[in-house]
Amino acid sequence: MYRTHNCGALRLDDVGESVILSGWVQRIRDKGFVLWIDLRDRYGITQLVVDKARTADGLLKQVRALGREYVIQVRGEVVERVSKNERLLSGEIEVLVRELHVLNPALTPPFTLEDETDGGEELRMKHRYLDIRRNCIKNNLLLRAQAAQAARSYLTSRDFVEIETPYLIRSTPEGARDFVVPSRVSSGEFYALPQSPQMHKQLLMVAGMDRYFQFVRCFRDEDLRADRQPEFTQIDCEMSFGHRADLLAVFEGLTRHLLREVAGVSVGAFPRMTYDEAIEKYGSDKPDIRFGMAFGELNDLAQGKGFQVFDSQELVVGIAVPGAAAHSRKQIDALTRWVRRPQIGAQGLVWVKCDKGRDFKSSVTQFFSPETLHKWAERLRAKPGDLLLVLSGEAAATRRQLGALRLELGKRLDLRKPGVFAPLWVTDFPLLEWDAQEKCYQAVHHPFTAPVETDMPRLDSEPQKVRANAYDLVLNGNEIGSGSIRISDPALQARIFELLGFSQAAAKAQFGFLLNAFAYGAPPHGGIAFGFDRLVALLGGGESIRDFIAFPKNNAGRDLVIDAPAEIDAAQLDELHLKTSE
Amino acid sequence: MYRTHNCGALRLDDVGESVILSGWVQRIRDKGFVLWIDLRDRYGITQLVVDKARTADGLLKQVRALGREYVIQVRGEVVERVSKNERLLSGEIEVLVRELHVLNPALTPPFTLEDETDGGEELRMKHRYLDIRRNCIKNNLLLRAQAAQAARSYLTSRDFVEIETPYLIRSTPEGARDFVVPSRVSSGEFYALPQSPQMHKQLLMVAGMDRYFQFVRCFRDEDLRADRQPEFTQIDCEMSFGHRADLLAVFEGLTRHLLREVAGVSVGAFPRMTYDEAIEKYGSDKPDIRFGMAFGELNDLAQGKGFQVFDSQELVVGIAVPGAAAHSRKQIDALTRWVRRPQIGAQGLVWVKCDKGRDFKSSVTQFFSPETLHKWAERLRAKPGDLLLVLSGEAAATRRQLGALRLELGKRLDLRKPGVFAPLWVTDFPLLEWDAQEKCYQAVHHPFTAPVETDMPRLDSEPQKVRANAYDLVLNGNEIGSGSIRISDPALQARIFELLGFSQAAAKAQFGFLLNAFAYGAPPHGGIAFGFDRLVALLGGGESIRDFIAFPKNNAGRDLVIDAPAEIDAAQLDELHLKTSE
Repeated sequence: MYRTHNCGALRLDDVGESVILSGWVQRIRDKGFVLWIDLRDRYGITQLVVDKARTADGLLKQVRALGREYVIQVRGEVVERVSKNERLLSGEIEVLVRELHVLNPALTPPFTLEDETDGGEELRMKHRYLDIRRNCIKNNLLLRAQAAQAARSYLTSRDFVEIETPYLIRSTPEGARDFVVPSRVSSGEFYALPQSPQMHKQLLMVAGMDRYFQFVRCFRDEDLRADRQPEFTQIDCEMSFGHRADLLAVFEGLTRHLLREVAGVSVGAFPRMTYDEAIEKYGSDKPDIRFGMAFGELNDLAQGKGFQVFDSQELVVGIAVPGAAAHSRKQIDALTRWVRRPQIGAQGLVWVKCDKGRDFKSSVTQFFSPETLHKWAERLRAKPGDLLLVLSGEAAATRRQLGALRLELGKRLDLRKPGVFAPLWVTDFPLLEWDAQEKCYQAVHHPFTAPVETDMPRLDSEPQKVRANAYDLVLNGNEIGSGSIRISDPALQARIFELLGFSQAAAKAQFGFLLNAFAYGAPPHGGIAFGFDRLVALLGGGESIRDFIAFPKNNAGRDLVIDAPAEIDAAQLDELHLKTSE
Repeated sequence: MYRTHNCGALRLDDVGESVILSGWVQRIRDKGFVLWIDLRDRYGITQLVVDKARTADGLLKQVRALGREYVIQVRGEVVERVSKNERLLSGEIEVLVRELHVLNPALTPPFTLEDETDGGEELRMKHRYLDIRRNCIKNNLLLRAQAAQAARSYLTSRDFVEIETPYLIRSTPEGARDFVVPSRVSSGEFYALPQSPQMHKQLLMVAGMDRYFQFVRCFRDEDLRADRQPEFTQIDCEMSFGHRADLLAVFEGLTRHLLREVAGVSVGAFPRMTYDEAIEKYGSDKPDIRFGMAFGELNDLAQGKGFQVFDSQELVVGIAVPGAAAHSRKQIDALTRWVRRPQIGAQGLVWVKCDKGRDFKSSVTQFFSPETLHKWAERLRAKPGDLLLVLSGEAAATRRQLGALRLELGKRLDLRKPGVFAPLWVTDFPLLEWDAQEKCYQAVHHPFTAPVETDMPRLDSEPQKVRANAYDLVLNGNEIGSGSIRISDPALQARIFELLGFSQAAAKAQFGFLLNAFAYGAPPHGGIAFGFDRLVALLGGGESIRDFIAFPKNNAGRDLVIDAPAEIDAAQLDELHLKTSE
């Protein structure tokens, strides 16, 4: 027997017990006459002790020969500690070692296996099996498993059935780039790895499965940005015979359940906001509403007063930064430089300091009367001590710039608190956007998204104004879920394909199997997909999704542990009827 | 609201309620003055009724215009049925329809959507979304989800953590053929899809995760045999700090839990049998022990009696077929032809009919005395009325042939009963087998399997006799799980690689990352992988795993619903730096 207990199990009640423990040597402290070993496993740390008074000399020597991360097994007796460690579950006891056996020696790790490590990310990714030994990463993986379990239990209790859909499917040129898998049996043909099980889950609705979910890996061969992975996990859900309100209630319930069970936070009904409102108030379709600083539009108060910068622009819009009137000129200049960086692209920044007096300090005092500036402050719901920041320009771009500035200030002012969770639904996205290059509309969500019922008449007259019956679940400024009611009417689907510039033949070639299926009786249905990696990272209060994936890939899409991708044998290529083209 | 209840929910208690139901039209019966609709969804069937006395004429006309599989919504009132249907959960009531709304019309399905269907497999696979509407397939998918849930709950309660390992990994020439995924970013390089997460789960043990499991898709590009899928699902498990007995106890417990929760069957402790014993007694390493007919070796009783067919052979071995002495000469001739077919390859079949009298009828009476034949019967534990069947030849081949005959007779005599579950462990497989072509040993299991402790000394002297510390879980003649204790000692691992003909450089190139990881302190560990598709098919009493997979591929590896694999755009190939070689 390798152990009678794990390293997190022993308590004061066990004093006097003879036990066997196995684990890794976290740390050894040698006081000469007494040595302590912190023995670690997944469950905790138990202190082992050997000393001159109670232990055979040979054993002390054995302990001195151990290194960090050696895998050892000990037999001994549980004794009460003199100085207890309240931070450890087993901190009230220690094990007086009688026998010690090295199960495996260990090289010294290339970085310290502590919460605060000295290892750079590259080094830690290469030795991920060591990084996972660190409490913080280990706990992230445990939290992830717990979240998956909580989600499964919630969905199962609501009649959702987990069904596995295939990973070897067919490539569709729509959306992002597919990873493909050459077929050996069918020369010249390829499978594709799914970007999502979208079509299969809709087939399951046609099949009458009513409520489906799946924890599913998805694959996108995109140029990687920070914190994107070529393979990622979704909680994919779909349900039949529900209107949007029914769906949102279920998926909001799921999210609330996860917040409660995993993050220990109770959250009330999620606010709902249309896409238009989110853009107008926060300059983003995934606003972080943990803090205010909602936008106020100032066109009527700021234009026609002789300030040419504003007069010629489509939009003048501002925010009130709480308590920031005390910002120095230097700080404000830094903000101005920040918004002018090419990543943001604003021309400049107008500021107004709202103090208690009548005359606000401002960069535009010469153009605007004190009364006008007071009206600005009123519009932006500013309090004395706030700093107004105002941008102007083309409406969409300016909102985006101010949205970025708002988030940056939220961060600097410490308003984006990790322990606070502010979810909301953003609904009614545009259905289509005009693609000037291809001279056709593109689906903003995907081609199976239904329009908002009341917008149907506009499909012919002004398609770009039609709203989608789509919804995103946003948490702390991150889109964590995205879904829609699907089109279940074949005639409407045909019309949408037409707007998207698909010929009938092209639509048939690409989506024929789905349209065929729909002809055999499709129920009304809709669904959502949660980005599980991001969701878990948020629940765990983490910054990077990589810290919540057991074996993540780096920004170049490489797995540094196993060094993949890699070359393959020429024989393998031959069997696949392929040649590399250099 | 599309429905107040699903189609399996209403009971006698609900009589008088006003309800809304949605679903598919399973069947319409038109008696002229009254029409019944069977309305179906995932949860059941509810009978709808319209009649001349209680229903408006327009509604009767509407119902007559419906076709099979139309998706409809009705509003009506729950009434008690005159003639109740006990086979339906909602069979005591019906819904008197007040309002009917067609949600979607449906083409007539190309095959009947009943348990007994008229559709061939090809047609049903092409329209899988219709096949799933059939109760039997739908119930298989529900059973699969239930089994997954039961397994997760069992493993989680025993401290196993579900951890997702990557799907885009690195190709290893070991074992079966990999599916590969060309990398666009790293020209000329490929990912591979995992045949199993073997190495990642061992890394997780090195990482200290202690107990891991995962429901995971695995991929093998093999030439397909019947009932093999290029992608399949495993319950993959691994645990640290356990001896073989500890592991078998946990995984036996899991299997027993599934048998009880999913198949409703209680099974006692699983018998254990060594590989050698399984081969000697049943001619198979995955014996079906739902029935007897264990082998008896007759060399000492059958050789040297002048029957040359036996005298020259390595092995004479037989079985007693219960109650088959009544077989006609014609039936026995058919069995003889059966064993002589090239798939079996026996030379002939010796038979002895054990009646109550002294003189057994036999095909070899002229060579063997009645006393000798009685001794054969005794050796084979035959009872009066049994038929002895005896084969001879080279030992391994003859055992295989007799094993096949035993299974065939078990089937013909109806001894392989679907409701009966007879699990067992088969242990102590050979570690290595000699590959005469490559002039080196091959790992029978995989290169990380540990030898049986007591066989270690033989590694140098007679490696082919070393037994592996490996175990298969066998259920009703199917291997449903396969696992082993892994090598955690780097020196032993190096020695095994040597026997497998790997140079140090080759071992390093292929498995270097694992060997590196082991150098940092590997715990003793082992695990198992269950073939979930097969396991679920057995639990559900099914014949084909395809009936338990939502979207299976056919024997040519094609998905007939979406028609994959398929050609991809030339532009896609270019981006991947690939050319097809014809």
